[in-house]
Amino acid sequence: MTNFKLTIQYDGMRFSGWQKQGNTDNTIQGKIENILSKMTGEEIEIHGSGRTDAGVHAIKQIANFKTNATLSETDIRDYINQYLPLDIRILSVEKADNRFHARLNAKGKHYRYTIDNGEVANVFERKYMTRLTENYDIEAMKKAAVYLIGEHDFKSFCDNKRMKKSTIRRISDIQINNSDGIITIDFYGNGFLYHMVRILTGTLLMVGTHELSCDDIPDIIEKKSRDAAGFTAPPQGLCLVEVDY
Amino acid sequence: MTNFKLTIQYDGMRFSGWQKQGNTDNTIQGKIENILSKMTGEEIEIHGSGRTDAGVHAIKQIANFKTNATLSETDIRDYINQYLPLDIRILSVEKADNRFHARLNAKGKHYRYTIDNGEVANVFERKYMTRLTENYDIEAMKKAAVYLIGEHDFKSFCDNKRMKKSTIRRISDIQINNSDGIITIDFYGNGFLYHMVRILTGTLLMVGTHELSCDDIPDIIEKKSRDAAGFTAPPQGLCLVEVDY
Repeated sequence: MTNFKLTIQYDGMRFSGWQKQGNTDNTIQGKIENILSKMTGEEIEIHGSGRTDAGVHAIKQIANFKTNATLSETDIRDYINQYLPLDIRILSVEKADNRFHARLNAKGKHYRYTIDNGEVANVFERKYMTRLTENYDIEAMKKAAVYLIGEHDFKSFCDNKRMKKSTIRRISDIQINNSDGIITIDFYGNGFLYHMVRILTGTLLMVGTHELSCDDIPDIIEKKSRDAAGFTAPPQGLCLVEVDY
Repeated sequence: MTNFKLTIQYDGMRFSGWQKQGNTDNTIQGKIENILSKMTGEEIEIHGSGRTDAGVHAIKQIANFKTNATLSETDIRDYINQYLPLDIRILSVEKADNRFHARLNAKGKHYRYTIDNGEVANVFERKYMTRLTENYDIEAMKKAAVYLIGEHDFKSFCDNKRMKKSTIRRISDIQINNSDGIITIDFYGNGFLYHMVRILTGTLLMVGTHELSCDDIPDIIEKKSRDAAGFTAPPQGLCLVEVDY
């Protein structure tokens, strides 16, 4: 039994997200599992580092799977890529320790949210950014971000109302940049709840337009209620950049 | 009568090229002219710096048009952008000297051809590159490029067999770079014939695979025959970067 680690890149626009959804499957996980199952003759299950929503992209998503088939890393990579559509690519395949699990062993994740805030909308990157034309007070957003850094109960930033498990997470850093009309918000943390990055983004953007004050953030966290936080920013501006192990 | 200069960016993939084609119009020129004609109530004709083929992109295409309407630069830009599809944008509108003509006054053009030559195909830039997986001898291509620089009769590199006008052009520079599996070929010249950049690219690529030798280039130029040169590289890797005046 060999455990393989996959590094996967995708343009999420056309897909219903990472997680397999049964028969009418248009998910990244489903597409890769189908190809691997055909290749090995086994029923392969792959474990992603986490789900990404419909429309969300990934530069380096990580997954692993186990197989009895004896195949080289390059053979696996090239076989899968041959059958995948061009908006999903296996960047690399590596042999991993048998105990390696892409989700359970993930120590941290880096997500980036990108906003096209230029005077004229960007042509070539338009599918990887959310177009928003308001004036954002970047300094206020940076002040608000400081309140979010650290270990908190992020229940207010979770769209799963029936979440039974802990909603405590640690955000180690948030970096906000504004350059040539492109605003990027980089989130680094040990894990993110359902829609958490998109709600954090929506909340920071509302601070940017002064619909919220940066000093509202501690209250929003304290309330542990989804209604207290800002809107869920659209998926297409979001990208999973990297997973740390 | 005011003469306006437009700077236009487009993702050429969905379009039948720059030049207007009558009724069933899916061209960049046609789309912009229609909007300007509605806006001004006049029959507006715009003059591009040159045609780009179906599928070819532009970072900064230049065009001009004259109108009696009294409108500000920003009004014109925002009006056109409001009605254009998102894969075409007017980056800027400027008032120009009445004698300014985007094609006749163009002194030089910069085109870039981009080849995805990585081990794994690029996901996010896939629509702006041509995927080619052979091994290219970049040094041989650079040597071949030196023969192309200067003033030559480029008839061998023109796909218009009934071309009556001069086929003499001056290429001031060709820069070839290979980095992280992306090969870019930058062409700078005073003008380019029909398909010329794509035929130059195809010819240089055939030198890269040793189907041609770099020392064949002077002969190819000398023959003044399209059959002597290499293949016409596909349009999607080509981009008009800039026009000099």
